[in-house]
Amino acid sequence: MKLSIERGTLLKALAQAQSVVERRNTIPILANVLIEAEGAQVSFRATDLDIEVVDRAAAMVERTGATTVSAVMLHEIVRKLPDGALVNLTEDGAAGRLTVTAGRSTFSLATLPKEDFPVMATSEYTTNFSAKATDLRRLFDKAKFAISTEETRYYLNGVYMHTSTGENGPVLRCVATDGHRLARIDAALPDGATGMPGVIVPRKTVNELRKLLDDDDATIAVSVSETKVRFATPAIMLTSKVIDGTFPDYTRVIPQNNTRRLEVDASEFAKAVDRVATVSSERSRAVKLTLDEDRLVLSVNAPDSGAAEEELAVAYGDEHLEIGFNAKYLLEIASQVDRENAVFLFNSAADPTLMREGNDTSAVYVVMPMRV
Amino acid sequence: MKLSIERGTLLKALAQAQSVVERRNTIPILANVLIEAEGAQVSFRATDLDIEVVDRAAAMVERTGATTVSAVMLHEIVRKLPDGALVNLTEDGAAGRLTVTAGRSTFSLATLPKEDFPVMATSEYTTNFSAKATDLRRLFDKAKFAISTEETRYYLNGVYMHTSTGENGPVLRCVATDGHRLARIDAALPDGATGMPGVIVPRKTVNELRKLLDDDDATIAVSVSETKVRFATPAIMLTSKVIDGTFPDYTRVIPQNNTRRLEVDASEFAKAVDRVATVSSERSRAVKLTLDEDRLVLSVNAPDSGAAEEELAVAYGDEHLEIGFNAKYLLEIASQVDRENAVFLFNSAADPTLMREGNDTSAVYVVMPMRV
Repeated sequence: MKLSIERGTLLKALAQAQSVVERRNTIPILANVLIEAEGAQVSFRATDLDIEVVDRAAAMVERTGATTVSAVMLHEIVRKLPDGALVNLTEDGAAGRLTVTAGRSTFSLATLPKEDFPVMATSEYTTNFSAKATDLRRLFDKAKFAISTEETRYYLNGVYMHTSTGENGPVLRCVATDGHRLARIDAALPDGATGMPGVIVPRKTVNELRKLLDDDDATIAVSVSETKVRFATPAIMLTSKVIDGTFPDYTRVIPQNNTRRLEVDASEFAKAVDRVATVSSERSRAVKLTLDEDRLVLSVNAPDSGAAEEELAVAYGDEHLEIGFNAKYLLEIASQVDRENAVFLFNSAADPTLMREGNDTSAVYVVMPMRV
Repeated sequence: MKLSIERGTLLKALAQAQSVVERRNTIPILANVLIEAEGAQVSFRATDLDIEVVDRAAAMVERTGATTVSAVMLHEIVRKLPDGALVNLTEDGAAGRLTVTAGRSTFSLATLPKEDFPVMATSEYTTNFSAKATDLRRLFDKAKFAISTEETRYYLNGVYMHTSTGENGPVLRCVATDGHRLARIDAALPDGATGMPGVIVPRKTVNELRKLLDDDDATIAVSVSETKVRFATPAIMLTSKVIDGTFPDYTRVIPQNNTRRLEVDASEFAKAVDRVATVSSERSRAVKLTLDEDRLVLSVNAPDSGAAEEELAVAYGDEHLEIGFNAKYLLEIASQVDRENAVFLFNSAADPTLMREGNDTSAVYVVMPMRV
């Protein structure tokens, strides 16, 4: 293998590969990236056995070939090379080393045989469709804060992507929940997605996917089977196993008959929650909401350290209500609101509360109250 | 106590107090800040029993008084209040609470009796002088990277500030060393500093002091005794115990007869050291310098992972030399150079090496070689 590639192009292609690689590996080759050069292209493949990413970049390939080297080390070296440098990668097979040169720098990196690299088995995808990067970004960004971190509830350790029916017809829907709060985000169903099997996309895949979605104009090719999901742009292909479990029936959790309506400026609300929560040093800080006509009082009482209270002018027309929430949950939910006021729909102090942006039902949040 | 103060002024005054406070305290009152209001001024005092800081700020004091509350909590609250808010602090003694109000926010914080707050004993300072903030900044900033972190060598856990004689007459000198490298920084001796007892200023004090030195035009009042050191601006007074130990005779460590002179662009040198060190994953990465006429080759050899080599055009006129150093030490020393080229003076591969900026002898560094 022998090729030349511009430093910036190489750095970008390696960035996602080194991010998929786990920092602690018991299998040495999983720390490596598989570099394959052919035609006018070089590809970089990395895997943790659950997720595989392949990055393709244009390169001047003088001699076709393939090898594997430490993903993190190669990425670090390229990162430290001067901007604009031309990087040469050379491997002759016999020496078991990859030579990296740029300017007056020469690196010689230990390789492992390309034959040992575990390439993920290709599978039959039952559903293939295209989705706008902006749509996928919204679906996953707004849902992922609610992913559970409890490893025993492995079926909640991801975002449940499936098809459903929303208020305005069929939707592609992402749901995440940890049992305390839930996010349900909808987008118009893309052509070809009908009949897609519902899949639980693991947290790490959600985070890796995010890096493909920064370009507003990009279109992402999505492929789904019962066991795998694939997201691809012309340059990057991210393939992931999905969580082998059944996502619980979330529809029962979403309250249908909450009628007490509070409308509040989401940013002002979040800041006030953050302030009053300061007086409590406990991990699960409880904030009490006291509602009266057009008036919301947020309060925290921590007998050891102090108390705090803040009043907000809001729109509320129902009867007096006192209800408590975990401050962190309220903050995270309020920070999902980006366009309009936050609308809360309450039932009683013991029932789950619903939150959405204005009257938009394409993003709905549920949060369980806490006794205060 | 009853007073009003602008949020920005209060935040600034609390910033240093909460930074001196240790996060884990077995003595509860050490987590608190002592607030004292009198005249048109309020002061905030915090201590860890080794360092004491007193910040003064202008305030509208309606009722004189004093109390103590959690430094971190009060700082957090003030930080989260909106910019430009007027903050009211009220304490009536009986309730054992400090009330903080701003806009529609009200906080009630637990207090501890002001009488229990450990105010540092005043001491007799034998030496008092004024120094420019820029001079002190240079003295401590350039020395502190070499402070030892080994707790058993407590007498090296700080910067040794003392008077001495430099090439151009009497100097105020700061020295730090961890046994592997040493920094010796000089400034012209300020009026009144003659006869100052040499003191070892602890690392934490050096870091706290740094915050007083940001203003280029500031003058710092320095007071020194055998056991304490004080740095003061009109608004802040930082008093610290000094380390009770004898700083070793560092002069024996500084080589006098190193004649092999290497001159190199410090930034290019640091970048190249950083790059070649990438191939080694060991904690103490050894970089080998191979010197020939006007040519420096940096190389690292890590049998398991790879090797790296980089050539630099330098000024060197002596005979062939190979010498190894810890990569981290070389990087830290090279990054102290800010104006001119780095000049290294070598003797043999086994002897300490001297580094300075150009021909300036007011900042001198020594680094021990490593066998490679």
